Amino acid sequence: MKTVLLTGATGYIGQFAVRHLIDRNYVVHAVSSKPSNLESTETLVWHQANLMDPAETAELVKKVRPTHLLHFAWFVEHGKFWSAPENLDWLRASIHLLQEFVAGGGKRIVMAGTCAEYDWRNPQDRFSELDSPVNPQTLYGVSKHALRLILEKYAFQSNISYAWGRIFFLFGGSEPPDRFVPSITRSLLHGEEAKCSHGNQVRDFMFVEDAAEAFVELLESKVSGPVNIASGSALTLKTIAGMIADIIGRPDLLHFGTITPPADEPSILVADAQRLQDEVGYNAYTDLRSALEKTIDWWKKHS
Amino acid sequence: MKTVLLTGATGYIGQFAVRHLIDRNYVVHAVSSKPSNLESTETLVWHQANLMDPAETAELVKKVRPTHLLHFAWFVEHGKFWSAPENLDWLRASIHLLQEFVAGGGKRIVMAGTCAEYDWRNPQDRFSELDSPVNPQTLYGVSKHALRLILEKYAFQSNISYAWGRIFFLFGGSEPPDRFVPSITRSLLHGEEAKCSHGNQVRDFMFVEDAAEAFVELLESKVSGPVNIASGSALTLKTIAGMIADIIGRPDLLHFGTITPPADEPSILVADAQRLQDEVGYNAYTDLRSALEKTIDWWKKHS
Repeated sequence: MKTVLLTGATGYIGQFAVRHLIDRNYVVHAVSSKPSNLESTETLVWHQANLMDPAETAELVKKVRPTHLLHFAWFVEHGKFWSAPENLDWLRASIHLLQEFVAGGGKRIVMAGTCAEYDWRNPQDRFSELDSPVNPQTLYGVSKHALRLILEKYAFQSNISYAWGRIFFLFGGSEPPDRFVPSITRSLLHGEEAKCSHGNQVRDFMFVEDAAEAFVELLESKVSGPVNIASGSALTLKTIAGMIADIIGRPDLLHFGTITPPADEPSILVADAQRLQDEVGYNAYTDLRSALEKTIDWWKKHS
Repeated sequence: MKTVLLTGATGYIGQFAVRHLIDRNYVVHAVSSKPSNLESTETLVWHQANLMDPAETAELVKKVRPTHLLHFAWFVEHGKFWSAPENLDWLRASIHLLQEFVAGGGKRIVMAGTCAEYDWRNPQDRFSELDSPVNPQTLYGVSKHALRLILEKYAFQSNISYAWGRIFFLFGGSEPPDRFVPSITRSLLHGEEAKCSHGNQVRDFMFVEDAAEAFVELLESKVSGPVNIASGSALTLKTIAGMIADIIGRPDLLHFGTITPPADEPSILVADAQRLQDEVGYNAYTDLRSALEKTIDWWKKHS
């Protein structure tokens, strides 16, 4: 029997991983720091736990006895997460969760990393897990990088299988409202002007529901080490914004060049997605327009 | 007023740092996990605390309000420390200590790193802080490396000054008895044969009392980043063993080539000590023969 401990289970990505895990015949033990009003079933058991508390983490792992661990939980408050001291709290909590999982006889771990582990000052057409230098410039990136180093070494010496999903740019329902896709979507839905920078920044965008599925496929696979969780498609912010405006029918409200982007903003952040597509075998990407339509529908109901 | 929190204060290096800190006009708050029967004075206050307990760490830092932190405490059991899960406990405890120190308004931090952060599979005449690749191959080395990455980033963004002392090979009183210098010394003092490998391994040996003083000088300096705590002298194990046998007067008991060294043992591990000597300005090395005489005297009293 496969028993997975899923952290961040009510979060941005985690919420969409639940169904895919059940489809893949896991008994899912879903953990959230918030009280959940979702009912537990035979294949989905909800837990409320504070992973910052070492005693609660130890007790949870002892109770669940997971064979698999899919770890999304982290501090992700928009605008603050890059340098927040909470990154260090989550690093400590994640290392402790790893220790308890290993001590409890767990078999495979997948944790969420970030494209911010790569060296953004060293521009690349595509960031590759095998060839691109890792040199994070933020406390968030350094904390994730440190966790991966520890995970890699400790999993290896404990004879446990591990993978590390490096997330690029996601969009979808329940994204923090001030981020790029939600802020444009909300403005246009309200009939307000959407101010944008020049819009020529090239990014790798992926639908959050696809990312959740890709993580579950990664957990199911035997692939080891870092894997970019990304589309591999290079799109400008202008293209994305234009498609949103087109779907909503308000291209007239989109004004590029009315905001000055940060001076240190990289011009290109795109993933090499070959490992995900070829080695993990994930190719079930939702087409961009459908994904944006779903996202816009979500915001219609929530803004 | 300079108030230093000294961890591992009864340990191998820490015990010798106390006097140098007092000489440099610090009020020393010395922490040990073990009960100390040493009496506190105006300039030396002893604390017993379990740094694994986040609440005890927080309480200690709030009480002491240190301006400086000199952190030696770690899991160091000979033979076990390379891969022990306790490395992860100490990594978590050290990150938490860092967080509390920063939150409490601390100004400068020095922590103990290791030559095992360098890539030993990539032989160098001398490992340099600036030029030699860091690529630790053990859980101990990875844990120290991860801690340094976190310390570097968090100190920088918190506007706190930091340095990181990479320890090479130390010898002196209270070294674990099964390590190289004590095991030969004890055999010869007991009139027993001392079995050695070929003895051609080249190492950087430093007297532990000198290392403690060098750490205090590093704390006093404004030098930032990693600094090798080492002699910069390349000596074979044969030379060291020969000098010990000569001092004790039993060269007849020394038998090289009677032990097979580990296959993956590096042939040369020597530090570039220029940063310590030129930038920190530490040059008060005890000459090797005097240091070995002191060490042998210690073992005469303790074995």
